[in-house]
Amino acid sequence: MTVKTNSLKINTNKNFEIIDITSKVNELIDIEEGIVSIFSRHSTSAIVVNENEQGLLKDFEFMLSNLVEDKYSYQHDRIDNNARSHLKSFLLSSSECLPIRNSKIDLGTWQSVFFVELDGPRANRTITLTMVGE
Amino acid sequence: MTVKTNSLKINTNKNFEIIDITSKVNELIDIEEGIVSIFSRHSTSAIVVNENEQGLLKDFEFMLSNLVEDKYSYQHDRIDNNARSHLKSFLLSSSECLPIRNSKIDLGTWQSVFFVELDGPRANRTITLTMVGE
Amino acid sequence: MTVKTNSLKINTNKNFEIIDITSKVNELIDIEEGIVSIFSRHSTSAIVVNENEQGLLKDFEFMLSNLVEDKYSYQHDRIDNNARSHLKSFLLSSSECLPIRNSKIDLGTWQSVFFVELDGPRANRTITLTMVGE
Repeated sequence: MTVKTNSLKINTNKNFEIIDITSKVNELIDIEEGIVSIFSRHSTSAIVVNENEQGLLKDFEFMLSNLVEDKYSYQHDRIDNNARSHLKSFLLSSSECLPIRNSKIDLGTWQSVFFVELDGPRANRTITLTMVGE
Repeated sequence: MTVKTNSLKINTNKNFEIIDITSKVNELIDIEEGIVSIFSRHSTSAIVVNENEQGLLKDFEFMLSNLVEDKYSYQHDRIDNNARSHLKSFLLSSSECLPIRNSKIDLGTWQSVFFVELDGPRANRTITLTMVGE
Repeated sequence: MTVKTNSLKINTNKNFEIIDITSKVNELIDIEEGIVSIFSRHSTSAIVVNENEQGLLKDFEFMLSNLVEDKYSYQHDRIDNNARSHLKSFLLSSSECLPIRNSKIDLGTWQSVFFVELDGPRANRTITLTMVGE
């Protein structure tokens, strides 16, 4: 049994961007079997698991902007003009804890792991991968 | 310290169904103390923890259909007519990472673990349990 | 490699309250490197990670009450008058699984871990910390 830590750096190009990180995460897995905590170190981003289909990813962006409506004014905008980005991050989650098998994340056929940029573009978004297993 | 993996198969009977899997998960726990990642291998489902009260589970279904509204048309529906199912899954989560004590999930008095079917009925929904501990 | 369990008790003072538990959790971490499952044993509460800014925390409360609307009547209220509290807990999550490094939760600069009270005031809210690592 061992614990291994790696990190993944990402540059984003748009205000909202959903980036499939499955293959990059798999390259950084260095245990054979166990679990991995995939954690974004930023409070205007999220980690989610779902299907990588372009239309669906557009629908996801649309749903989030419906849920956190533009029409309201938010207190955090007095300090930093990104309240909606934080609120979307609250609703989603900053981490996922996933199974590893044969040195890869053991996903279903239609699943990918995504980093969701909610306040881009940004350089050096950092995702910490912590693996526990053997 | 050890890592153990098991999986749980479920058949669902309705389009939306919320199934208490606590006792089935407990039967598959084979470490005494540690953590378990409970992960659904499907992008139109979710794993959640809450109270098993029939009225509340109906309220939960009602809330989700309010949040992901029927009135909009979604791009993913051009390919596969289940965008709303994926979007609800995005909002919830495909996994939970829970404590194990005395070879059981160490839940509070009013808590159960649920598999949420968002696009049923389906045969052979698979949930992966990955335990790390001793 | 080892597994360690600790728990944190909290008394809350308001119906909705968001409490930064980062430093209390850090005091209870007793491994050097690994992961920690931070789990609330209550189905009317949540664990989230985001920025500790007072205006933002008010915005978060406002968003949640928009998402789980007062105008509807909920079935669970026939039994126990707190359906909205459970529904907000469903939407958020009862746990987070986070990285530990140098005997602390390895958060980003603008991140804190919060316990979200959704049905207070309550005495003895319990959060279980399960650490796996070395």
